[in-house]
Amino acid sequence: MVRKIVLSLAMSVDGFISDLDGGFDWIAGDGDNTQNTGNQWNYAAFLEGIDIVVMGKNCYDQKMHEDFKDKKIFVATSNPLTDYDNIHFISGDICKPILKEKILKGKDIFLFGGGLTIDSLIAADLIDEYIIGIVPIILGKGRPLFAGSNPTIDLKLDTYSISNGVVVLYYSKRQGN
Amino acid sequence: MVRKIVLSLAMSVDGFISDLDGGFDWIAGDGDNTQNTGNQWNYAAFLEGIDIVVMGKNCYDQKMHEDFKDKKIFVATSNPLTDYDNIHFISGDICKPILKEKILKGKDIFLFGGGLTIDSLIAADLIDEYIIGIVPIILGKGRPLFAGSNPTIDLKLDTYSISNGVVVLYYSKRQGN
Repeated sequence: MVRKIVLSLAMSVDGFISDLDGGFDWIAGDGDNTQNTGNQWNYAAFLEGIDIVVMGKNCYDQKMHEDFKDKKIFVATSNPLTDYDNIHFISGDICKPILKEKILKGKDIFLFGGGLTIDSLIAADLIDEYIIGIVPIILGKGRPLFAGSNPTIDLKLDTYSISNGVVVLYYSKRQGN
Repeated sequence: MVRKIVLSLAMSVDGFISDLDGGFDWIAGDGDNTQNTGNQWNYAAFLEGIDIVVMGKNCYDQKMHEDFKDKKIFVATSNPLTDYDNIHFISGDICKPILKEKILKGKDIFLFGGGLTIDSLIAADLIDEYIIGIVPIILGKGRPLFAGSNPTIDLKLDTYSISNGVVVLYYSKRQGN
């Protein structure tokens, strides 16, 4: 099995992954479970299949890396910092070190956030799977998932799940294009 | 029954409703019908419940109004034009004449497009139902559905359908907020 680079996050119907202040408290269901699917998004099971997490410096500053103590963590940062424990800082191009890992044996690589880090990977079309939870809200303004100047990438809907009005869409890059 | 204002259109995963040239030829499935739901989006049945269609001048110029000969059509335009047959031109605020119709007896009001026209209605939070088909593609660039400066609008997922990798999400405004 080739190691995959997987983006997984929640966005509003209008494409934002955090509000303008970087907040997430709008990420919630609509209180209605009648549309729930039999299969459900299982974050714990997803993390079992991951051994590298990639995140931006803002996520790190918010201590989001602490949820992944048993994994190797790449933190994209504009200023060089000294690695420690499982934390590896990358200043400059984030794509190269990830591609270097991808050809090694291992579990999948979880692209956690934030927006700028993700954008580099989308722009380089390096993401193998997009798992996007669509939160039932028009947020209005915030930090967008997609920067609006990406290449065109054909996707294939592999499966989906719904919980409490949140629709999780599991896409992979469409083959044969 | 109160008459509803219903937005219904297709957007890419990254939120575009047409490409930069206004083209739609990217709106297509992924060729895989294994995820199809039992219920399916039925455009003909949807149109049965509509007697007013609202569109922008660009849509009109592309003759999209010709698909709705049995309906009253509002065309939003920056320059005043003379009404004819079922075509009613509106220069200036599009919201007021739509609200005027909404309190009259009738079927639902279909907000067809384009972006600027829709944006006025979203910004004024006048849309009762959002039916959004998510096309399995990251288009990269194009004309966005959401302008990025809207009010926050809580939605409720009423139902969904999937056909050929296109996921149609049926939202209404969440009550009690």
